[in-house]
Amino acid sequence: MQRPLDVLGSSHDKKVIVHLKSGAKIAGTLRAFDSHINLWLDDAEIEDSENKVKLGKVLLRGDNIVLISPEK
Amino acid sequence: MQRPLDVLGSSHDKKVIVHLKSGAKIAGTLRAFDSHINLWLDDAEIEDSENKVKLGKVLLRGDNIVLISPEK
Amino acid sequence: MQRPLDVLGSSHDKKVIVHLKSGAKIAGTLRAFDSHINLWLDDAEIEDSENKVKLGKVLLRGDNIVLISPEK
Amino acid sequence: MQRPLDVLGSSHDKKVIVHLKSGAKIAGTLRAFDSHINLWLDDAEIEDSENKVKLGKVLLRGDNIVLISPEK
Amino acid sequence: MQRPLDVLGSSHDKKVIVHLKSGAKIAGTLRAFDSHINLWLDDAEIEDSENKVKLGKVLLRGDNIVLISPEK
Amino acid sequence: MQRPLDVLGSSHDKKVIVHLKSGAKIAGTLRAFDSHINLWLDDAEIEDSENKVKLGKVLLRGDNIVLISPEK
Amino acid sequence: MQRPLDVLGSSHDKKVIVHLKSGAKIAGTLRAFDSHINLWLDDAEIEDSENKVKLGKVLLRGDNIVLISPEK
Repeated sequence: MQRPLDVLGSSHDKKVIVHLKSGAKIAGTLRAFDSHINLWLDDAEIEDSENKVKLGKVLLRGDNIVLISPEK
Repeated sequence: MQRPLDVLGSSHDKKVIVHLKSGAKIAGTLRAFDSHINLWLDDAEIEDSENKVKLGKVLLRGDNIVLISPEK
Repeated sequence: MQRPLDVLGSSHDKKVIVHLKSGAKIAGTLRAFDSHINLWLDDAEIEDSENKVKLGKVLLRGDNIVLISPEK
Repeated sequence: MQRPLDVLGSSHDKKVIVHLKSGAKIAGTLRAFDSHINLWLDDAEIEDSENKVKLGKVLLRGDNIVLISPEK
Repeated sequence: MQRPLDVLGSSHDKKVIVHLKSGAKIAGTLRAFDSHINLWLDDAEIEDSENKVKLGKVLLRGDNIVLISPEK
Repeated sequence: MQRPLDVLGSSHDKKVIVHLKSGAKIAGTLRAFDSHINLWLDDAEIEDSENKVKLGKVLLRGDNIVLISPEK
Repeated sequence: MQRPLDVLGSSHDKKVIVHLKSGAKIAGTLRAFDSHINLWLDDAEIEDSENKVKLGKVLLRGDNIVLISPEK
């Protein structure tokens, strides 16, 4: 039986795009996640309607997330 | 006794439309779900009032969801 | 002793109107509900201030709901 | 020792006014309540800044409620 | 060791002012409270930027509350 | 091992400034706190963009709080 | 197996930037965190679109946080 969080398990050390509730998007390399969908991303970059900022390593709190998509 | 989540059980590997609280809609093939209604969708596409974007595989966090409807 | 969710128990296979927090309303035939007030509706139709759309079968997430009223 | 929910216990089968977070108000006869302050109201009527609509029997989800006041 | 809810314990049968998240304020005599900070107020009166309305007895749901202050 | 709530433990009977989600700020003397970060403040004063009001003793519900800072 | 909160563990006594849901940003030295991602920061400074204010020591409530990034 597969589970939704398997999408994250198979994206370990790969680049993902995260859509936030604020409308911003964060791209980064997925290093770790937990059951709250808190994420550790490396080489992260956040982009909103106005600009794009390099953040490096981030802990992203799961309750801000709409969806996570592995980069194609 | 039937339960609401049976709607998802019977939609396995089928196309569903998801309405989000933000007003956006996501269409995709349902691969997995859990008790929080987190969803794993394949071949997903998100559409808001402005545009339509192909996302591929996504993990959608359940707390963003208004409703899920299997494609007719 | 009666409980609020008895309103749903007595509406099984009957038409209900659901008011959502977004201001939209959904009408449909109630097939199942759970303790989170997640609903399975058949022949559902959603209506907001702008238009009315047929959805067919839907799983409606309980945390979007203001009230549920059996059709008179 | 009295508890806040005793206000509801003493309003059984009596008319109450409910103020919602949306700003709307619902009047109806209180038939049942639970620990989440979900309410079953009969002969309910909802009124917002624009109009007043008869709803009949309703299940009102507790998390929408600001306050409940027995009709004087 | 004192606890924040002692402010309510020492205000039993006394007048309190409650600030709500909506910006409205409710004044009333505190009859009972519970661990969710649900309140039973008597002789309550609600005031927002537009008007002031007498409510009498009310059950106020704790999650709407910003702060509670005993009347000086 | 230190914990975030130690900031409150070391501010007992001292003046703190609290930033609320609404944008308002409350200053007062910290008398007690609990694990929800509910606060009992004495000699409290609330200030928003429009005015400053003395409140005296208050119970502040933790879920309204952004941050708490001991007065320097 | 690594976990997202390891980002915080490795930032002890180091400077971090915190993005809040309100759009404000707080910079400070991380002294402690807990499982709710409540943070104790020293030498904190908050910056929103209008101005920048020194706060000194703060307890930041975790539910306001979007992301935390160690300063590069």
